Amino acid sequence: MTPDYQKIISEVFTQVRAEENLGKIPDYIPEIADISTEKFGVNFTGLNGQNFGFGDFEEKFSIQSISKVFALAYVYERLGEKLWSRVDVEPSGNPFNSLVQLEADKGIPRNPFINAGALVICDILLERCTDPKEEILAFIRNLAGDNNITFNEKVAKSEMQNSFRNSAICNFMKSFGNIRSSPADVIEIYCHLCAIEMSCKQLSKSLLFLANEGKIPGSEAQILPFSKVKRINAILLTCGFYDESGEFSFRVGLPGKSGVGGGIIALYPSHYCITVWSPKLNSKGNSYRGMKFLEEFTTQSGESIF
Amino acid sequence: MTPDYQKIISEVFTQVRAEENLGKIPDYIPEIADISTEKFGVNFTGLNGQNFGFGDFEEKFSIQSISKVFALAYVYERLGEKLWSRVDVEPSGNPFNSLVQLEADKGIPRNPFINAGALVICDILLERCTDPKEEILAFIRNLAGDNNITFNEKVAKSEMQNSFRNSAICNFMKSFGNIRSSPADVIEIYCHLCAIEMSCKQLSKSLLFLANEGKIPGSEAQILPFSKVKRINAILLTCGFYDESGEFSFRVGLPGKSGVGGGIIALYPSHYCITVWSPKLNSKGNSYRGMKFLEEFTTQSGESIF
Amino acid sequence: MTPDYQKIISEVFTQVRAEENLGKIPDYIPEIADISTEKFGVNFTGLNGQNFGFGDFEEKFSIQSISKVFALAYVYERLGEKLWSRVDVEPSGNPFNSLVQLEADKGIPRNPFINAGALVICDILLERCTDPKEEILAFIRNLAGDNNITFNEKVAKSEMQNSFRNSAICNFMKSFGNIRSSPADVIEIYCHLCAIEMSCKQLSKSLLFLANEGKIPGSEAQILPFSKVKRINAILLTCGFYDESGEFSFRVGLPGKSGVGGGIIALYPSHYCITVWSPKLNSKGNSYRGMKFLEEFTTQSGESIF
Amino acid sequence: MTPDYQKIISEVFTQVRAEENLGKIPDYIPEIADISTEKFGVNFTGLNGQNFGFGDFEEKFSIQSISKVFALAYVYERLGEKLWSRVDVEPSGNPFNSLVQLEADKGIPRNPFINAGALVICDILLERCTDPKEEILAFIRNLAGDNNITFNEKVAKSEMQNSFRNSAICNFMKSFGNIRSSPADVIEIYCHLCAIEMSCKQLSKSLLFLANEGKIPGSEAQILPFSKVKRINAILLTCGFYDESGEFSFRVGLPGKSGVGGGIIALYPSHYCITVWSPKLNSKGNSYRGMKFLEEFTTQSGESIF
Repeated sequence: MTPDYQKIISEVFTQVRAEENLGKIPDYIPEIADISTEKFGVNFTGLNGQNFGFGDFEEKFSIQSISKVFALAYVYERLGEKLWSRVDVEPSGNPFNSLVQLEADKGIPRNPFINAGALVICDILLERCTDPKEEILAFIRNLAGDNNITFNEKVAKSEMQNSFRNSAICNFMKSFGNIRSSPADVIEIYCHLCAIEMSCKQLSKSLLFLANEGKIPGSEAQILPFSKVKRINAILLTCGFYDESGEFSFRVGLPGKSGVGGGIIALYPSHYCITVWSPKLNSKGNSYRGMKFLEEFTTQSGESIF
Repeated sequence: MTPDYQKIISEVFTQVRAEENLGKIPDYIPEIADISTEKFGVNFTGLNGQNFGFGDFEEKFSIQSISKVFALAYVYERLGEKLWSRVDVEPSGNPFNSLVQLEADKGIPRNPFINAGALVICDILLERCTDPKEEILAFIRNLAGDNNITFNEKVAKSEMQNSFRNSAICNFMKSFGNIRSSPADVIEIYCHLCAIEMSCKQLSKSLLFLANEGKIPGSEAQILPFSKVKRINAILLTCGFYDESGEFSFRVGLPGKSGVGGGIIALYPSHYCITVWSPKLNSKGNSYRGMKFLEEFTTQSGESIF
Repeated sequence: MTPDYQKIISEVFTQVRAEENLGKIPDYIPEIADISTEKFGVNFTGLNGQNFGFGDFEEKFSIQSISKVFALAYVYERLGEKLWSRVDVEPSGNPFNSLVQLEADKGIPRNPFINAGALVICDILLERCTDPKEEILAFIRNLAGDNNITFNEKVAKSEMQNSFRNSAICNFMKSFGNIRSSPADVIEIYCHLCAIEMSCKQLSKSLLFLANEGKIPGSEAQILPFSKVKRINAILLTCGFYDESGEFSFRVGLPGKSGVGGGIIALYPSHYCITVWSPKLNSKGNSYRGMKFLEEFTTQSGESIF
Repeated sequence: MTPDYQKIISEVFTQVRAEENLGKIPDYIPEIADISTEKFGVNFTGLNGQNFGFGDFEEKFSIQSISKVFALAYVYERLGEKLWSRVDVEPSGNPFNSLVQLEADKGIPRNPFINAGALVICDILLERCTDPKEEILAFIRNLAGDNNITFNEKVAKSEMQNSFRNSAICNFMKSFGNIRSSPADVIEIYCHLCAIEMSCKQLSKSLLFLANEGKIPGSEAQILPFSKVKRINAILLTCGFYDESGEFSFRVGLPGKSGVGGGIIALYPSHYCITVWSPKLNSKGNSYRGMKFLEEFTTQSGESIF
């Protein structure tokens, strides 16, 4: 029997909003630092056609690392399994921007969702696309069915001015031969992808194909073969939340991805995609209210992939 | 439409057996080192009552680290969520017996399936049980419905004579206060659990409750609440294969656990438990043929949790 | 022109005693934890026959890691250069009891003055001596010309009860094959050597051969060839103060060795051996007043090996 | 009694030249890769006025990391002890270009002779000098009494094209706030300093002040106060040879510094400065023949600081 998602979400949303809002907004991107800590939105999109939201679900925010899912899907479709010679699929067991592991692994990032891995994905975009930024944007616009999705250039610029750690990672990988273009060009793509702005509603719609065997529901356009979609979902589950991935798998039990903009997407294959947004982050860099909401939501609905 | 599991398994079994059998049998336990490298068995047990095996599926082998699943289930039921103050639920991103992470995390193991975590579980058994070895054996016998399951004392003795690395881990955690009993007593329990002998058939039957919301099918006895079963499955998925957990999740897409005796169990929640046994191990310490068989099996059946 | 050591030492001793006495006494050995924090002694022994002390210079204290110098000298003389196949001569760049490096270096300790290295030295003593504890004691008694030097058995027992970290290190090295005897036997020797009690006066006299080309002054007995003495002094300089070795070399400029009992010995080759004792330790585990005294002493005397 | 240095050096030089010349020339700088592997020169400069050389002692080579000694001396004189808030004085216990330790130490390099530390020194040069490259060159020319010492611009350019690892280190430290100028500017200075060309004869003369209490012999100009010179010598001893510093201290027993151009300088305070050059490097990155020559030389002369 299918749970009454709308009722559950409504109740959990109200409950979480009533509780204390802990955590911190990161301060290194002024455009994000200035956002109201009380922003809170949820959007649910089901394969059965259900679609509803609560709170600030139509307000755009900086999707940050959630963009890594789009970039991976785009590159994986084009490069196929040989992608995995340049990036691994193992959880990192380390903070998202650690260089220690990269040194032990001779420049091969542990997975495509830590910064190092996403930088390699951006480097591949540069090798294979004429205009990587526009192609990724077009890919996302097509998924979302919305041509108004854009980069926030101010955010991208702030990110570039604060990209010393990512520059270190990129130069380090280049010293091992795992970056082909110039580090500066790779960083420019990377910072722009992070600076894409979307609403909870747009994110749920855009990523629903990952819960639908690779097809855009309705249009039945096949974005990725089912076998590749399953693999992306597997990596989301084991690596989507940096060093809190095990915890998310343990508490929520769904593949998902977070961003420092406060967004989290989660997927229940064959059923739905859900997006939450709340800007304050816990100590591991994931949305405090987002984590709390999703744990309570899957507990109430009684559904998970386990 | 349910796949014809028996036909798929029969075909994949035949195919994998025909291919080269790579990897190595570990040599530090004479009783395991002497086993024929050609042993190969598979057993499938479905919630729908289906049960069949191929090859050496009724021959007992040393379950080794698969015993960590039984020990975790037993301790988690008794201790509840406060268990997680002594062991974490994150993938390790390091080989199974690394001390590096333990130093950084001040004696708290990353998860209950690396050696350090299982040693903490054994320490908790010592604190809470009058006769830990017999209690765990009784727990397994009850799940398997078979009173002939026992420890191989020769294997246990060999393990104890080769337990310097585990002694190091155990003493190290005790220096941080995360081991309460004497390291020697903890090691004794640990080595005995590793030395339990079961067949593929017995393992599939015994662990089927993890695919059945915590209940023994048929008897409907509730071994663990569903909420706890989901959490064990989540940890199996993210941490069940040491530093190859991401790879198993990526290729097979099911929660599972391997042992250096060459056994692997895997679960498809609400559907089945499958066990494979083949003694030669790949470089990460997981059964070479077991990994290959399970990847091909889930590819053919088209089913995974993703 | 030779400085007036006695005048300088008298003044620096008075000055340091007048200043605040920072740091902490380690609490894991009750017999050391109970010592008055105000104990403070210095003894100078010159090759020219000068010998004088200030404060508690004749009171015995637990020499702890200073015993590693005696054990190294004894083993090096007997084993020769092949000793270095089991222990290296490089500074560790890590805290004294770290296991991280030992993992990277496959069980070969970085140098004989970190705990791991001293445990290997103890293991060699067990291989080569009939009664290692008595032989080392006899070696030291001969150097000191005093048969009353003994182990404090209470301290040794406390150390053994608190040796989980050292047991971890010892078992870890045994897993790599770099320990031959049982870890428990190695630990027993190690803890006894740490528990030797000597005064500043006895230490200065006993170690003067390291400043005298390997000969006991007066008797002209050759304890070690000059070439080996130089090498021990070199290791003392680069490794004698755990992760503060560079700092000691930088500030004091003499080969030396500290112990958690609060003692420090330092050598000016061809000139003198000086010993300081004050129980409170700085954050790196070296005597707070001992470090301060020696820095000021070499500054005033204007002498160092550089 | 002073040894007959000229006779000893002549004999050791002949002996080492007759033996097999192991090791490899690094291939990442074409200008260095092309140098004859048989180049071999030695120059001795004593405080007593002795000065003589053997082999290719008057041929200029790329001094590479030996330039770090000049840069440190220049910056230390100007900045004083507050320099040590930005770079430590501890041996690294890790390869010269490791990022692991830098992560643990939050961007503070272990010492001024690993690459990270030298990059911080270059950053300080940029903060305090109008034209850092010319000022350092003038400093060296003054010490050498030779205005023909210059940068090899081709080498500098090759280094800049291969500076990804150093860029990684520099950006990484900037992310911790320990680099003030742009990483590209810092790298430019760094690569130029490495590309300075000097002969053995010029190096011995230029660095003799470190063996002479800070004064240029003859002119009696005070380059650095004696107290600072001693400290530089102490850091040379503990950190001058990357992860082979303990070995050099153990075998040679003198403060010294090597460069990947194949040069090594060593100092015996109050006596002499000696420079060796031979391009093939051992596995730790130090001149194979240089190390061998210096070990044999100090063994024959019987002199060291220990």
